[in-house]
Amino acid sequence: MVTSAIEHEAVLETCRSLEQDFGFQVTYVRPGVDGIIDAKAFVDAMRADTAVAALMYANNEIGTLQPVGQVAHECRARGVPLFVDAVQAVGQIPVDVREIQVDALALSAHKFTGPKGTGALYLRNGVGCRPGLRGGPQERQRRAGTENVAGIAGMVAALEESLGSLDTVSPRLAAMRDLLFDRILSACPGSVPNGSRTDRLPGNVNISFPRVDGESMVMALDREGVLVSSGAACASGSTDPSHVLLAMGASEARARGALRVTIGAENTWDEIGQAQAAIVRIADRLGAPEATRGGGSAPAWAAMVTGSKALG
Amino acid sequence: MVTSAIEHEAVLETCRSLEQDFGFQVTYVRPGVDGIIDAKAFVDAMRADTAVAALMYANNEIGTLQPVGQVAHECRARGVPLFVDAVQAVGQIPVDVREIQVDALALSAHKFTGPKGTGALYLRNGVGCRPGLRGGPQERQRRAGTENVAGIAGMVAALEESLGSLDTVSPRLAAMRDLLFDRILSACPGSVPNGSRTDRLPGNVNISFPRVDGESMVMALDREGVLVSSGAACASGSTDPSHVLLAMGASEARARGALRVTIGAENTWDEIGQAQAAIVRIADRLGAPEATRGGGSAPAWAAMVTGSKALG
Repeated sequence: MVTSAIEHEAVLETCRSLEQDFGFQVTYVRPGVDGIIDAKAFVDAMRADTAVAALMYANNEIGTLQPVGQVAHECRARGVPLFVDAVQAVGQIPVDVREIQVDALALSAHKFTGPKGTGALYLRNGVGCRPGLRGGPQERQRRAGTENVAGIAGMVAALEESLGSLDTVSPRLAAMRDLLFDRILSACPGSVPNGSRTDRLPGNVNISFPRVDGESMVMALDREGVLVSSGAACASGSTDPSHVLLAMGASEARARGALRVTIGAENTWDEIGQAQAAIVRIADRLGAPEATRGGGSAPAWAAMVTGSKALG
Repeated sequence: MVTSAIEHEAVLETCRSLEQDFGFQVTYVRPGVDGIIDAKAFVDAMRADTAVAALMYANNEIGTLQPVGQVAHECRARGVPLFVDAVQAVGQIPVDVREIQVDALALSAHKFTGPKGTGALYLRNGVGCRPGLRGGPQERQRRAGTENVAGIAGMVAALEESLGSLDTVSPRLAAMRDLLFDRILSACPGSVPNGSRTDRLPGNVNISFPRVDGESMVMALDREGVLVSSGAACASGSTDPSHVLLAMGASEARARGALRVTIGAENTWDEIGQAQAAIVRIADRLGAPEATRGGGSAPAWAAMVTGSKALG
C-alpha cells in the first residue's frame, strides 16, 4: 500500500493496523516543504504488488491541496484502487468524483456544519468493499447496522446548503485567510506560514511562531474568545508535535509553535480583525525573547523555510 | 468461541468473520423447542481454550429471555469474557450489569424510541477492547471518529424516559401480549406460539400459522394499517426462513408461517383488538385449506410442538 505521511489519523491508524495485524507493507510518501505531495514521487512509490493507495484531498492541519486528480489518473493506469479522504475538502471547495475519477472517497458532515457523527463513503460503480461493520444487510451489505436516518437527512441538507453558497463563500474565506496571513506574518517577527499559501483550503491558516508553544497560545486565545487549535482536533490532548509538520521537515520547535485557524462561512470580517489582533498580541507576549536568550534573533528553524528545498 | 445459534446477525456475522478471516472455531449452541438456551449446555460447550462467549439477553424474533446471569457466573469462574447483546432487552425489562456482572453489553437506542443509528457498548472496568474503528483517540481509544453528540444526547433522554415508565409499561405490554396470544391461538386452528410464552419480552408475540406464508400476512396486514413483521427486521427482504425457528427444530413450513408482532408503549388496547381481529381474519383467508388438501387437518409440524422435546 502507498499513502502519504501527512494523512489524517483515520487513515494512518488503519495503515498501522494493515501493517501490524495483516502483514501489509505501507509506504508513506513525504511532502515537500510546502506540505504538498509530489504526484510523481507518490506514483513512483507504487510497486507491482501495490494493492491500494490512499491520498487525502486536503490536509486537515495545514489545508494544503494534494494532487488527487493526477494520482488518480496514474492509479487507474496501473489498476491500483485509490481511496481519497476528502473530509476537509467537501463543502469548502468543489469536489467532483466524475472529474477526478477516484475509486473511493470519504466525507464527513460536521465539516460543512452537518450533524456530528455522520459521514459518507463514495464508491465508484463496480468497486467492491468488505464491510467494516458486520451484521444485517443494510446499505447494500457494505455497512451493517440500523441507519442514522436523522443524521443522513441532516447531512444532505447541510451539504446542499453548503454547496449552494460555495461560489460566494469560498472567495470570501480565501480573502480572510490571506489577510490573516499577511497581517500576522508581517507583525510577528520570525513567524512562518506552514504549507503552501496558494494551494490550500480557503478557510485554513497555519502559522508557526518562534519561542511559543502552540497549546499555550490556544489557551490564551480561548480566554479572549478566539477559538483555534494547535493542530488536529482529533489529536487534541496529545503532547506529540504534529506529524504533518515533522513530515514536511519542520523542527520539533517549529511544529510545537504552530497555530491553526479555521475560518468558517459564519465568521465576520470583524471577527477576523479581532482574531488577528489577539494572535499578534499573544504571540508577542508569549514569545518575548528573554534577556538570557540573546533577544530577538530569528530561531534556527526559520532559515529552513526560506531554503524551501523539496524533501519529496 | 461459544455463542448461541439464535443470536442476531450482528453477532452471527461477526462469528462467521472470526471463523473465515481469523481461523477461530465457533460453537453455536442450539436452544430448546421453547427458544431458550440451556445454561448448562452453553457452559458445557466451552473448552479450555475458549477465548470469548456471546449470549443474547433476549431473542429479537421470538423474545425469549436467555439465562445470561447463570452463564455470566460460569464464565467468570472459567475466566472467559462474556459479551451480551441486550439490544432487545434494554428499555423493555430491567437490565442491571452489576447484577448479571457481564464483561460487555450492547444496547441500541432505536429499541427504546431513541434516535436510529445510536447505541452504546458497556465494558466492565478493566475489560480491554481493541477498537473496531481506528483513527483518532475518541471514546478513550475504543471507537475512533467524531462523536454523534445529538444522537448520544437523544439516546440518553430516551433511555431515561423509557426506564422511568418501565414499571407501568411492562405489565401493560405483557397483558396485551398475553391477550393477543390467547385470542389468536384459540381462533386460528393449528396456529402455534413460537418460543416460551412465559420467559419472553413483554412486547413480543410470535405465532406460526399453518398453510400461510408469513411475508404474505405481513403485506395483507400492512394494507389494513397493522404493521408487523415475519421475522427480524434486519433480515427483511430475505427469502430464507428464520434461523431462530429452524434452530429450535421448527420445520421450514413452520418457520415460513411465522408472524412477529411487537407491541410498543404507545400502542392502545383498541389497536391490540384491531390487530387481533385483522390477524385472525387474514390467517383464516390465506390459510383456508383447499379442497384438494383434505380440509382442515392440522399440519404435520404442529404435532412437533406438543411433543416439546428439548433439542439441547
